Amino acid sequence: MSAAPSKTAAGRFFEDFRVGQTMRHATPRTLNAGDASLYSALYGSRFAVPSATTFAQAIGYPVAPIDDLLAFHVVFGKTVPDISLNAIANLGYADGRFLKPVYPGDTLTAASGVIGVKENSNRQSGVVFVRTRGFNQRGEAVVEYVRWVMVRKRDVEAPAPPTEVPELPAAVAPHDLGAACPPIDVAAYDFELAGSPHRWGDYAKGERIDHVDGVTVEEAEHQIATRLYQNTAKVHFNQFSEAQGRFGRRLIYGGHVISLARALSFNGLANAFHVAAINGGRHVAPLFAGDTVFAWSEILDAAPLPGRDDVGALRVRLVATKNRPCQDFPLRVGEDYEPSVVLDFDVWVLLPR
Amino acid sequence: MSAAPSKTAAGRFFEDFRVGQTMRHATPRTLNAGDASLYSALYGSRFAVPSATTFAQAIGYPVAPIDDLLAFHVVFGKTVPDISLNAIANLGYADGRFLKPVYPGDTLTAASGVIGVKENSNRQSGVVFVRTRGFNQRGEAVVEYVRWVMVRKRDVEAPAPPTEVPELPAAVAPHDLGAACPPIDVAAYDFELAGSPHRWGDYAKGERIDHVDGVTVEEAEHQIATRLYQNTAKVHFNQFSEAQGRFGRRLIYGGHVISLARALSFNGLANAFHVAAINGGRHVAPLFAGDTVFAWSEILDAAPLPGRDDVGALRVRLVATKNRPCQDFPLRVGEDYEPSVVLDFDVWVLLPR
Amino acid sequence: MSAAPSKTAAGRFFEDFRVGQTMRHATPRTLNAGDASLYSALYGSRFAVPSATTFAQAIGYPVAPIDDLLAFHVVFGKTVPDISLNAIANLGYADGRFLKPVYPGDTLTAASGVIGVKENSNRQSGVVFVRTRGFNQRGEAVVEYVRWVMVRKRDVEAPAPPTEVPELPAAVAPHDLGAACPPIDVAAYDFELAGSPHRWGDYAKGERIDHVDGVTVEEAEHQIATRLYQNTAKVHFNQFSEAQGRFGRRLIYGGHVISLARALSFNGLANAFHVAAINGGRHVAPLFAGDTVFAWSEILDAAPLPGRDDVGALRVRLVATKNRPCQDFPLRVGEDYEPSVVLDFDVWVLLPR
Repeated sequence: MSAAPSKTAAGRFFEDFRVGQTMRHATPRTLNAGDASLYSALYGSRFAVPSATTFAQAIGYPVAPIDDLLAFHVVFGKTVPDISLNAIANLGYADGRFLKPVYPGDTLTAASGVIGVKENSNRQSGVVFVRTRGFNQRGEAVVEYVRWVMVRKRDVEAPAPPTEVPELPAAVAPHDLGAACPPIDVAAYDFELAGSPHRWGDYAKGERIDHVDGVTVEEAEHQIATRLYQNTAKVHFNQFSEAQGRFGRRLIYGGHVISLARALSFNGLANAFHVAAINGGRHVAPLFAGDTVFAWSEILDAAPLPGRDDVGALRVRLVATKNRPCQDFPLRVGEDYEPSVVLDFDVWVLLPR
Repeated sequence: MSAAPSKTAAGRFFEDFRVGQTMRHATPRTLNAGDASLYSALYGSRFAVPSATTFAQAIGYPVAPIDDLLAFHVVFGKTVPDISLNAIANLGYADGRFLKPVYPGDTLTAASGVIGVKENSNRQSGVVFVRTRGFNQRGEAVVEYVRWVMVRKRDVEAPAPPTEVPELPAAVAPHDLGAACPPIDVAAYDFELAGSPHRWGDYAKGERIDHVDGVTVEEAEHQIATRLYQNTAKVHFNQFSEAQGRFGRRLIYGGHVISLARALSFNGLANAFHVAAINGGRHVAPLFAGDTVFAWSEILDAAPLPGRDDVGALRVRLVATKNRPCQDFPLRVGEDYEPSVVLDFDVWVLLPR
Repeated sequence: MSAAPSKTAAGRFFEDFRVGQTMRHATPRTLNAGDASLYSALYGSRFAVPSATTFAQAIGYPVAPIDDLLAFHVVFGKTVPDISLNAIANLGYADGRFLKPVYPGDTLTAASGVIGVKENSNRQSGVVFVRTRGFNQRGEAVVEYVRWVMVRKRDVEAPAPPTEVPELPAAVAPHDLGAACPPIDVAAYDFELAGSPHRWGDYAKGERIDHVDGVTVEEAEHQIATRLYQNTAKVHFNQFSEAQGRFGRRLIYGGHVISLARALSFNGLANAFHVAAINGGRHVAPLFAGDTVFAWSEILDAAPLPGRDDVGALRVRLVATKNRPCQDFPLRVGEDYEPSVVLDFDVWVLLPR
């Protein structure tokens, strides 16, 4: 009679990670029209391309693609049991690229490699850097990104693995963008139907946009979303244990905040139909049920895509706050983040030219 | 560097409307099986035709149609950014007709024309009348209705557009019903499986039906529903701003109440499988999360459909209340509505003969 | 002008049941990918077979099947208006067998026969035993089970039907298992992708597994789930009436607890991809919104399937608790259930050999 612990996954602790380790993650997941509907209902996204088959087909997609961030969250979710079950905090993202469109019917799997480890000075935890790739059923990578996460040690006395911190790009280079965006027939892109006349060329570096609207988050909503992604991180679901935790409450999955901010950004960036890259991102402060999320964007850069005159890229800093409208673009107070800021996200998005 | 307001939609104010204006609304939306499942889970509808492909096919549909009200809400949602972003209240509906069935895979778009404007005597707002049409991907109108809405002025001093109030029919005429209902093979309509033996001829003018059951509404539910319809009206989602508003709370989308009442009406009107027309409707009082909705119906009229012996129409007054069962059919106290009444809705529904 | 009660279903009371009665239940329901997505989002299930078409096809399914318990709940839901609308408590299950896989696109109907009745000594209620079968659109039984339920009498003075209590098996026999599981190509079953290396032979009778994780339930979640199953039992939805009821609160559908426990059991039983039989089950105590559900399992038995060397069966006692982690496997205190226990469920599950 074997002991129960052998069957139950306890997750890796900091001392279990080594640079060079690779992991194939469970569980494969077929994304379909039902997932797209739920994603739509959870965030209220209005970008025309993932919303309507006719619109997507008119400009060159075979069918309406799955929302980029839904694919990202599903890939991310698979990594949790292997990487962040014992995480204290998800610290950042870098070098994220969308490589192939994901369509209803595609099945996603994921694999990760450890690319850095660094013990904290208190020796109770350390930072683990992983590069994760999501694949479709043909084995093609559809998304790739680096994230780093602070992970508890099982045993404070355990020797730390040799420190290694990867060099990461500040941003994905423009020539690496667009792999997941088929050639777009801009003449067939109906700007009125998409909700805004503003093309790539209408945005200027330094421009800031208040996305105006706010949305209050409910416990049922973030739990339903996070389970849709098969993300099992305990802090999102277990009020019994979180009542004794750091915050006394369930913590909302950071990806939920990202998707809320992205949906809000429609009001001002309606034609930014595709997220092509995640340059970086920080969950600056926790979000809880009952909080109202607002967002604003700054255009950090604009770049044409080498060899393409159909779409152009905008590098956008997407900032989300809680319980504070963004008409004055809150971000910093001195060296620190303004206290209402919950997300500081840096992406490349594509718009028709 | 352009200023942010140029990119963000502020919505039209009362003085921006003129009779004759037309608008094509964003965002196109493909409705699929996932939307039908969500609609089912949000309201618990049990009408057999939209619930089961086999049932629908047996009586003459090519597949199970999308619920009539789901199509209505999706069309309605598209109009919000152009018409009612600055609305104070959604005042009424008239002349609503379902013109073609909507099937999974169909993509809906919407367009509206302004058919009336009337400034309020306080000059702070006015009433705007619009006729909205929803279209499928072949450009066929699937639903059409008039609604009127009270809209804030941007500038109280702004001159009002010339007053014009449209004449609207008290009810859709029977000969205008049924366009969205294919010929039904009544011999193949399984009344036991549908949940009731009562046909069109079993209902009599003046008959009143208490739908008995009650359902309590949660914030997460109405938010998920309203986002499913891509309806962005601020009052439904933003507790931060609504805390300082009229009610101190998020207001539930009136269409959510309509769908709850329609689902409750199954218990007593199980074979009313199709909503053919919306003669009129008033959201008499606001509904909030935590309230329990009850409903009752009165048969206002019964009419055969010219040239059809498969189905007949019942004109039904569908009344919803909050926190008050309906065994005594609450509606009026003197000239006023009974205080628990939240919805007074007037529809034509079709039943097998 | 007919009176309203004739149109509204009041449900059967105890004195309305007779052994031998049969009922065909409304409403037929087509299950599709949207229902599978919602089920996934409501419970976070990670079993690979219903999650991914590729995984299911690799081992021998034509496509990913609908989760066994989703099919069960949909069949169960149909029986409520005919059997348990006036129920005081759902007392138990027995002899439940999954007979055919259910695939997206299948339409389920249900029929029941009364197999036992027994008035309670207080004469105010009685126990009704029914055998229910769910069918697909080809008329093939997909699931069958017995449940018994305590039903109110309409009239305490009404004569009771003759007492008859059916003999029910303690467990489904191994040779009756597996009809809903096609031949599995175990060589193609990717244990790493499924999330665990443990096969049927790795589990031993008497082994106990703490499933570790806990999940807090919200009102919106259980209401959405229960409506997805078209289960109309009043106690789950109507806070207005339940405020004056036994508990002062909405009671969560017992099947919601079963599905939560099943999803939690992935952590320890990841390859138990199919529920083949429900030997028995008791909802030991009510669950309410805000409670956190934990679960543990005991392997009661292990059996090969006659004539099959691809899969083997484990008889598992799946216990769910509220607001109490399960590391010490809570079940009994003397004769009584430990006060935190909400579910004592006895199933056969199949795993690859």
